[in-house]
Amino acid sequence: MLRFSVVPLLAIACAGGAGSVPAATGPEDAVRAARAHRERQGATILRDFAAMLALPNTPDEPEGLVRNAEALAERFAARGVATEVWTQDGAPPVVYGRIDVPAARRTIGIYAHYDGQPVDPARWAHPPFEPTLYTGPREAGGTRRALPAPGEAIDPEWRIYARSAGDDKAPFAALLAALDALGAAGLEPTSNVVFLFDGEEERGSPHLATYLARHRERLRVDAWLFADGPVHTSRRPQLVFGVRGVTGLELTVYGPLRALHSGHYGNWAPNPALRLAQLVASMVDGQGRVLIAGFYDTTRPPTPEERAMIARLPDDDAALREELGLAATEGQGAPRAERLLLPALNVRGLEAGGVGAQATNAIPAQATASIDLRLVPGNDPAAMLDLVERHVRAQGYHVIDHEPDRATRLAHPRLARIEREGGYPAVRTSPAAPVVREIIAAAEAAAGPEPLALVPSLGGSLPLQLFLNTPDRPIVIVPLANHDDNQHAADENLRLANLWYGIDLFAALLHMSVAP
Amino acid sequence: MLRFSVVPLLAIACAGGAGSVPAATGPEDAVRAARAHRERQGATILRDFAAMLALPNTPDEPEGLVRNAEALAERFAARGVATEVWTQDGAPPVVYGRIDVPAARRTIGIYAHYDGQPVDPARWAHPPFEPTLYTGPREAGGTRRALPAPGEAIDPEWRIYARSAGDDKAPFAALLAALDALGAAGLEPTSNVVFLFDGEEERGSPHLATYLARHRERLRVDAWLFADGPVHTSRRPQLVFGVRGVTGLELTVYGPLRALHSGHYGNWAPNPALRLAQLVASMVDGQGRVLIAGFYDTTRPPTPEERAMIARLPDDDAALREELGLAATEGQGAPRAERLLLPALNVRGLEAGGVGAQATNAIPAQATASIDLRLVPGNDPAAMLDLVERHVRAQGYHVIDHEPDRATRLAHPRLARIEREGGYPAVRTSPAAPVVREIIAAAEAAAGPEPLALVPSLGGSLPLQLFLNTPDRPIVIVPLANHDDNQHAADENLRLANLWYGIDLFAALLHMSVAP
Repeated sequence: MLRFSVVPLLAIACAGGAGSVPAATGPEDAVRAARAHRERQGATILRDFAAMLALPNTPDEPEGLVRNAEALAERFAARGVATEVWTQDGAPPVVYGRIDVPAARRTIGIYAHYDGQPVDPARWAHPPFEPTLYTGPREAGGTRRALPAPGEAIDPEWRIYARSAGDDKAPFAALLAALDALGAAGLEPTSNVVFLFDGEEERGSPHLATYLARHRERLRVDAWLFADGPVHTSRRPQLVFGVRGVTGLELTVYGPLRALHSGHYGNWAPNPALRLAQLVASMVDGQGRVLIAGFYDTTRPPTPEERAMIARLPDDDAALREELGLAATEGQGAPRAERLLLPALNVRGLEAGGVGAQATNAIPAQATASIDLRLVPGNDPAAMLDLVERHVRAQGYHVIDHEPDRATRLAHPRLARIEREGGYPAVRTSPAAPVVREIIAAAEAAAGPEPLALVPSLGGSLPLQLFLNTPDRPIVIVPLANHDDNQHAADENLRLANLWYGIDLFAALLHMSVAP
Repeated sequence: MLRFSVVPLLAIACAGGAGSVPAATGPEDAVRAARAHRERQGATILRDFAAMLALPNTPDEPEGLVRNAEALAERFAARGVATEVWTQDGAPPVVYGRIDVPAARRTIGIYAHYDGQPVDPARWAHPPFEPTLYTGPREAGGTRRALPAPGEAIDPEWRIYARSAGDDKAPFAALLAALDALGAAGLEPTSNVVFLFDGEEERGSPHLATYLARHRERLRVDAWLFADGPVHTSRRPQLVFGVRGVTGLELTVYGPLRALHSGHYGNWAPNPALRLAQLVASMVDGQGRVLIAGFYDTTRPPTPEERAMIARLPDDDAALREELGLAATEGQGAPRAERLLLPALNVRGLEAGGVGAQATNAIPAQATASIDLRLVPGNDPAAMLDLVERHVRAQGYHVIDHEPDRATRLAHPRLARIEREGGYPAVRTSPAAPVVREIIAAAEAAAGPEPLALVPSLGGSLPLQLFLNTPDRPIVIVPLANHDDNQHAADENLRLANLWYGIDLFAALLHMSVAP
């Protein structure tokens, strides 16, 4: 395997001019180098990727996570990256690495995670840690085949099946191959690079803030690249400039102390399931507009740039409606990408009494709704929960945060318990910042003739605010996996065309242009 | 044990006058006879009751049910009642009996059931079919004691614990003792009597209609007495003149074909849990008034007699609110007994997604509410369900009765499935009918100085309409068990004072006055 060696390249770079990185080459050259490299070394890249996928990485196997971290550190160190394995009691390690380019005028950080979602092997076609190659998606008739021999032609529609093939070991395979490709072509990084590889993202990264605080000085970057998630559902490459924030609550309404016979007490004793329905119904109108006072007041409106990005996005709403069996959507049919720029209130669950075979003719003793809020820039998680709580009070409820005793019940005709969750705010990066414009140019080079989708924000949430040194530090999500990769589920897989794109993408990002 | 022999008594009766039943004695005499009898024979009555309670009578033991039926037939036959055991494939037997009094001008029917609710012996202090005597309620410190020896003093606060002690074998012990008491005192029934003992009431009596249809001619009575249920919660004896009817439905609202990530699709894909809440909330206002068009239109208003009965009922609403931890009740705090004269819509369950530890940040694929309706005279079960369905349509829903396919989903922005249950109408008896006035007088004689509670209707439901030969055939519920008998639960029990009252009650009813 070719090895990328930072030291000699840096020596060349330093020899190239008085402290400046040579500008003779750009991301297009890096993409050409990446393509040449994977055409020669595709089989080797796949074999090493399979070796990484064979390491179990579920949260219940801490030793497995340590082995993953060590394997990554070893691979990046072998390519000249200065690596460290950071540890913390009770937490999986963080793999840290850096490439220092003496003449570089800036530093980019690259985040990915090596832990995977839990697995239920009984639901997998093959054991989740025995990576298996198929000639296409299994559900579309793909058949199993051996890993290719060196020099053998590789069909980009092949897929490799294993836990974390898409989420989130693909970036490691792509980064390692990109480093090798640049080294083979004699191209060096144009920025300093910080690598940060998380081992508990799937559990919400509870120890990451502590890691970041301990090593703050060594994590100063000019932009973070988040290598996670899938490309656009249209298969077009995409860059994403933000995430929605998230928080949530459990709302419980109380009726009688014990469930009551609905005949003997029906329409005398208040029914908490009915009251909960009334309370939840009061929060949102028939078109999905949230009726909680102030809910939209703190929302920063989309910028003209964000609106322009949305206008250029591929429109797959109709295809999604067809796929999901939806005759209509909320917000008078506004495009999904627009709707995701608003805060949302989602009822994720209702529970009271029983339905179907579990139904008994009783007035339930209590009823619970579980609600999550998605937040956009301007929304503070705790302040948004305050608004919900104020709304519940405005409907005549006495709000408590614990199970009520009899005296509390007898004192308040309407009694609701609100249990708040934590949460974190939205993050949005401006595509107009110079470093972001360069990131976009690099990704466009990797995308080739295919138009790159630029997305203002994921609808979903990632704790990106942990990485914000200042409020306007750019964070760009650089996904590479196929959207149909069965992420978090059985038979997770990566389409090889997406791995190839990932190599191109990281080569271009590592060698992107740097404005003077 | 004393035996009541119908034949010699009837001979006496017939000798007494030209075809007329002697009017020299009345229900007060029967009550005196009952009290004298149980003071002499209390221990014997209890031992025979215990022997009946020792026969397992759960629905899962058909042979046990047959043994119960045979034991009853044998006991009633031994007292001169002409008994038959009716059978039907796949159904427990019905025990039928009659006492024909040649000069009687009318016939009363007495219904009780010998089957019991299922038992979970692990939750019982003693095996449910090993009847055990206690000096009081176990939870109030009552201690176990032996059955009394003949002649031993019996405390009416003692309780006998066994399945069906209250629901519904107590009436058999009371009826048998009442027959013995009348026989011992030389008093005969003043009406012909038809006994009908059901063996599957706890399963909803699915075969009873067939039994009744087969034997229609032998079940012609002038009034039915339903011996089931508890006396008033104030421990006052009560007669009840009706029941609410019942029906129900399952209402399912559909969202996307599969649960969706609430971040990526939240406030774009419609949320069925929210829509269900809105739909349910639209059905009832904040004071418990049903908003479904026409819901109250067919309700026959309470008669002046019913209003008068309610005004005289003991008011235990405040005590119930305290017991149940309710600061307020529906209908602006109207008395419970009044509220139970209205039809009711009760949400017995809500189910969508997950709450608490089961909550995931997802838009659920569907949401279901389970609803039961309680009906009053004038309400037809199917017509009431029609009103609910019309209401759902009026909220913009396309209503179906089966799981929708993709084409149906794509054709209708709002889609609801309604699965209807069967049901039966309410029954109400006028307390003004002559035979009912005599029944009340007999029960007052048994109640003694304690005021008898007269209740227009149970809030709950019994399929009494099966027994209506004509719409105005009186049906009176004659409960005798204590309200705190743990009916349907573990440690079911009967307070002996309630058994004594039952003997007095049936003696009085069998020997009640008959208006000329």
